[in-house]
Amino acid sequence: MKPFHTFQFHRVLLFAAALVFAVQSHAETDSLPSWNDGPAKQAIVDFVKATTAQDSPQFVPEAERIATFDQDGTLWVSHPIYAQVMYCLDRVPTAVKAKPELAKVEPFKTVLSGDHEKIEKLSMDDLLKIVAATLTGMSIEDFQTEVKAWLETAKDPRWKRPYTELTYQPMQEVLKYLRDNNYKTYIVTGGGQDFVRVYSEATYGIPPEQVVGSALETKYEYESGKPFLIKEPKLLLNDNNAGKPEGIHLMIGRRPHAAFGNSTGDRQMLEYTKAGEGARLSMLVLHDDANREYAYGPAQGLPATKVGTFTQDLYDEAMKQGWTIISMKNDWKQIFAFESK
Amino acid sequence: MKPFHTFQFHRVLLFAAALVFAVQSHAETDSLPSWNDGPAKQAIVDFVKATTAQDSPQFVPEAERIATFDQDGTLWVSHPIYAQVMYCLDRVPTAVKAKPELAKVEPFKTVLSGDHEKIEKLSMDDLLKIVAATLTGMSIEDFQTEVKAWLETAKDPRWKRPYTELTYQPMQEVLKYLRDNNYKTYIVTGGGQDFVRVYSEATYGIPPEQVVGSALETKYEYESGKPFLIKEPKLLLNDNNAGKPEGIHLMIGRRPHAAFGNSTGDRQMLEYTKAGEGARLSMLVLHDDANREYAYGPAQGLPATKVGTFTQDLYDEAMKQGWTIISMKNDWKQIFAFESK
Repeated sequence: MKPFHTFQFHRVLLFAAALVFAVQSHAETDSLPSWNDGPAKQAIVDFVKATTAQDSPQFVPEAERIATFDQDGTLWVSHPIYAQVMYCLDRVPTAVKAKPELAKVEPFKTVLSGDHEKIEKLSMDDLLKIVAATLTGMSIEDFQTEVKAWLETAKDPRWKRPYTELTYQPMQEVLKYLRDNNYKTYIVTGGGQDFVRVYSEATYGIPPEQVVGSALETKYEYESGKPFLIKEPKLLLNDNNAGKPEGIHLMIGRRPHAAFGNSTGDRQMLEYTKAGEGARLSMLVLHDDANREYAYGPAQGLPATKVGTFTQDLYDEAMKQGWTIISMKNDWKQIFAFESK
Repeated sequence: MKPFHTFQFHRVLLFAAALVFAVQSHAETDSLPSWNDGPAKQAIVDFVKATTAQDSPQFVPEAERIATFDQDGTLWVSHPIYAQVMYCLDRVPTAVKAKPELAKVEPFKTVLSGDHEKIEKLSMDDLLKIVAATLTGMSIEDFQTEVKAWLETAKDPRWKRPYTELTYQPMQEVLKYLRDNNYKTYIVTGGGQDFVRVYSEATYGIPPEQVVGSALETKYEYESGKPFLIKEPKLLLNDNNAGKPEGIHLMIGRRPHAAFGNSTGDRQMLEYTKAGEGARLSMLVLHDDANREYAYGPAQGLPATKVGTFTQDLYDEAMKQGWTIISMKNDWKQIFAFESK
């Protein structure tokens, strides 16, 4: 082998350095590769720069970097029915097996009939009865085991994939981008805290202690001298609407600097976030992509749905308060990780 | 200057390396310098080694390393009266100024009289009335400002120092030792969550989101169109006794691997911790040092006190369950950071 001339060697080094620099620059501009250029992507990048650059007048110390995300409809598909509601409905036969008298009364009769049209029309009161029958009276550990088993087999009817694969790739990138910039990312969901905690770490990289949600009471009990926590049919926290900022204060104790939602249930969280001092980011996911996902809600002239209601009022408030709308159709290059690019 | 011979230079390097190594070894054996050698110190060191050494059969993944600490009497002095109770008593004149009618009714009349003997005999119901009058009806931010101001001026009557200086140096070392081994350290206190969060970060290096405590409800309200959270006179979480494991599940969602307490209010937390699989550490601080701090509780033949009751029952249960007793007198070389060594 011909010996390398020192000059040549230096040139190689320079070239290597340039390459590293190019890769780094590329990585920097590409933290959100599934996003199209536009006001939504720009708002996220500007916010991160404003709050993390040492010389920025809006710099936020690392300890205070909190970002909160609604889950259903914001991080994953919630239409036409929440995954957790599907879970409860799927568990009705087991609940009826344990308490056969339920088979003769509503709403269990309807659920067992399998009549989808009737099931979709169940009232909130009916759903709460189903929640009480299917989520309580068991230990935390038994509950976790059951949810885990269900998640491994249950599939969304449209995509025929596990629910945990139906997370939005662009939002996964936002979670990672914020964490890479030393933000603590939290889920703040109207859904069940115990339910979401079962998969939040594997699905979003968010540990159980960073999941705030609606919560039933638990009770400390003993079986054969061994203590355990049993899930009680009594609502302790309703993490919707005003319950979101209240839950955030209880569980985190700091006002978020960034918050992401998609429905009227997230309004107060976005408002509370934006009302803080300095740079604050409040964003709303608008489901306006009937082909790749769904389009629903009065904000686009479509009827409201039971879940993830994005009303015209909410849209108007977003405009007034300076929240940024994320259009799935226009802002997202890719929606799911499994799509071919 | 005489030029250094290469050989000499290598010797200096070797010497420097040896020095670094020696300092490191010293640091390793000295993570708990304020502890005397004995079963308590050994239990902590053994636990950390068992759960963090990669080849240990009891290895715990980093994400699951949770340690919980009671505060009053475990991390700082709580005798003869909790700092937060002092805070409430000190705030009574302000509360009476805002609502003059309180001056004529109990327990406010007694507090205003300044009669220490009578004040010490106030019932739990009386204290709750004082809590409601002094901690609620204000925004979270106003509450935080007031607590901060109080902490800067209030002093413990015996040591004539701010309460935040009355933390136990040996426990500060345990907190740091666990964090250095990638444990997340939590305060789980029967005291007020909002109160402790004001100073937990500066005093213990524990951020607000890692403080679990008793909590009053908050309510999301508006003033001149700006949203804020107001503290309500309604108890949401009572983080004592069975409320501790319940609070841990709600706020953390994982069972701790180590827990530290000092009174009957911590019994269930220690029991819940120890009932988990693998290596678990449950420890109880026994106040048996009348000279350097205090000695109280039936476990040492002294009368029970209102705060931090360490009963004979608790002592017996600790023995039965394999919890480790920390004797302040025998296990702690130094109690406070300000002591001359």
